[in-house]
Amino acid sequence: MLDFDILEYQQRLEKTKISMANQGVEVLLITDPANMNYLSGYDAWSFYVHQMLIVIIDEPQPIWIGRYMDASGAKAKTWMYDENVMAYPDFYVQSDEYHPMQFIAEILEQIGQGNRVIGVEKEQYYFTAKSYEVLKEKLPNASFKDASLLVNWVRIIKSSQEIEYMRRAAQIAERAMNAGLKSIHTSARECDAAANIFFELVRGTEEYGGDYPAIVPMLPTGENTSTPHLTWSDQYFKEDNSVIIELAGCYKRYHCPLARTAHIGQPSEKLDRLAGIVAEGIDNVMSIVKPGVALEELEHEWRKSTRKYGIEKESRLGYSMGLNYPPDWGEHTASIRRGDQTILEPNMTFHFIPGIWLDYYGLEMSESFRVTESGVEMFTDYPRELLIQSPYQLPNDSNGIIS
Amino acid sequence: MLDFDILEYQQRLEKTKISMANQGVEVLLITDPANMNYLSGYDAWSFYVHQMLIVIIDEPQPIWIGRYMDASGAKAKTWMYDENVMAYPDFYVQSDEYHPMQFIAEILEQIGQGNRVIGVEKEQYYFTAKSYEVLKEKLPNASFKDASLLVNWVRIIKSSQEIEYMRRAAQIAERAMNAGLKSIHTSARECDAAANIFFELVRGTEEYGGDYPAIVPMLPTGENTSTPHLTWSDQYFKEDNSVIIELAGCYKRYHCPLARTAHIGQPSEKLDRLAGIVAEGIDNVMSIVKPGVALEELEHEWRKSTRKYGIEKESRLGYSMGLNYPPDWGEHTASIRRGDQTILEPNMTFHFIPGIWLDYYGLEMSESFRVTESGVEMFTDYPRELLIQSPYQLPNDSNGIIS
Repeated sequence: MLDFDILEYQQRLEKTKISMANQGVEVLLITDPANMNYLSGYDAWSFYVHQMLIVIIDEPQPIWIGRYMDASGAKAKTWMYDENVMAYPDFYVQSDEYHPMQFIAEILEQIGQGNRVIGVEKEQYYFTAKSYEVLKEKLPNASFKDASLLVNWVRIIKSSQEIEYMRRAAQIAERAMNAGLKSIHTSARECDAAANIFFELVRGTEEYGGDYPAIVPMLPTGENTSTPHLTWSDQYFKEDNSVIIELAGCYKRYHCPLARTAHIGQPSEKLDRLAGIVAEGIDNVMSIVKPGVALEELEHEWRKSTRKYGIEKESRLGYSMGLNYPPDWGEHTASIRRGDQTILEPNMTFHFIPGIWLDYYGLEMSESFRVTESGVEMFTDYPRELLIQSPYQLPNDSNGIIS
Repeated sequence: MLDFDILEYQQRLEKTKISMANQGVEVLLITDPANMNYLSGYDAWSFYVHQMLIVIIDEPQPIWIGRYMDASGAKAKTWMYDENVMAYPDFYVQSDEYHPMQFIAEILEQIGQGNRVIGVEKEQYYFTAKSYEVLKEKLPNASFKDASLLVNWVRIIKSSQEIEYMRRAAQIAERAMNAGLKSIHTSARECDAAANIFFELVRGTEEYGGDYPAIVPMLPTGENTSTPHLTWSDQYFKEDNSVIIELAGCYKRYHCPLARTAHIGQPSEKLDRLAGIVAEGIDNVMSIVKPGVALEELEHEWRKSTRKYGIEKESRLGYSMGLNYPPDWGEHTASIRRGDQTILEPNMTFHFIPGIWLDYYGLEMSESFRVTESGVEMFTDYPRELLIQSPYQLPNDSNGIIS
């Protein structure tokens, strides 16, 4: 029933408590759904209402507090005793008068935690400015500390089981990329390609199913390739246009992102040249990945490799990733960019995505990788090149749509 | 290029300014992606980094501020002048040292807004506790007001164009429900049904494509039907199990949710009876929908209709919905529940979802509707009953998967 052995959850909890002790946090209020899942096993699309996992430094199990209708899901999906699952009544939901943090503050008082040092995730999507105000008001004897990313940093090194889940996600990512490419021609619409991609992402393989990715597939086309985060339209693909496909396979909430650029018809020389420069840059950077190297050295290697061709890239080149929920599969900890002195260790996992967005066109090509004991493991094995698409439907496809 | 006529965006802006004036807000900082889209047209999956739309009560156009790489998308996707699109450099992204709200505060100072009454969306996913702290610190002469839901309340009455988009979303919802049911039998896995649903949601119809819904399809099965927000697994469906399908069609970010419960094989008498009670309750409630009725009266009608059968439901029965982004398609304004005195007006739109979650089983059946000048328009036309599924694959389906 649980996605990991109960011992693994307990080890994660121990590591979290060590970080709490180091940061002087006695009670940690976790609102990030990935951090909740990581420590408790809880997995449901209920994070659109307030919910929380409470880790108390001198208590053996966390406490889950959420909406009444979600409590049986929490009992079924977590390793904790049922008594550690608590629920607030429905009148707290999206109300002018009541706020779930009032309920949570009362519980904290009742169990004797109202006067402790409480860590909160201040820079986290599901912990609102209002949540923090209510907690501060209702717990006047507590002292609050910013504990953003405390658990995220614990997550940065993956267990072998987590790596195995990411390898499965990688298999799904490759299938989804193939499915998307199959319908990139002038007889299909952008939404048809996106539908094919989603179908494969969710169906998974014959052996295991897929999960929803934390970000939907991005599919900018034509001039829109100059900007990275547009999704898709219902326009037909056009000859001589490029299409950027950025997607992630997902298995049990673990991601493997993959981006490629396709071109419908014959690409221009400059696009072709750009693809070669990016592929060479990726090769060079991957060749120096190993434990002991700092992330900023990867950025330096990229710069060295591409500057000679006149390519300058201001934005970061990648980030740590793995377990996550919408709206982002990145872990918000280490970034592959100038000044990031995080040292690579075995079983760190990153998405390296040196996207190039120019005035009227762009190119993305990415790789997800794991740091091994001595070097690098690539999660996917996909041609590192500009993918040339025939403008016409292949004769063995009835309609460009998966069958 | 724009999804609505420029005049419609300007009317929305005017209504927003009237609300601002009523609430004493001079500068409104909008972080809710649906509110940003509603007022500017901006649509991209970039809300996982900080971005903002600034409405100044005495300026004719809003200002968009976001990440550098997203600015060309904002120029392409909004109705404002390009000068009103501003961007922060990439080193502000997910950094220990820098926060995008520092940049935004500087802009506000520079354009002379640093000493005004500033409204912020305190109870909103993408406005973090940290964002608020940084703004308060960097704008010491401003006075801050909670303006959560200010724009959401403007959104509650839809234009005829918005209604048309929701009708399209409804067509997509029906197709997706059909596709899901097609693979609910003992030779298919939950992920296969979810894949079919996603495929139809995104492909849309021959005339128009689908968009990603703000919540993924929910697919609790068996005992998990006692809790509403679990997604899917890769287990095969089992005979004598129920499956709840809750999904939404989406067109240009406008939603039409639809929920039904299927049963594989012969349902128990009590489940069958429960479905009849819920269907009768929905009929009764829908029959009294018209302008001038308060939402709490709908709840009262439901209670009257179902209490005689021994059904008690604590949680709310529905909510206003339309335009949205993950993690929720609800608008967080009016709810169909006890005590909500919002009065129905023409072109309000709701999802009525009286889910019943009991100890070991549950049932969901829902309707999305629009209040008309004299009554109600149902968005979908789907059998209001428990859907009985054969445990065996139909002979004309090769594998339970869409072809």
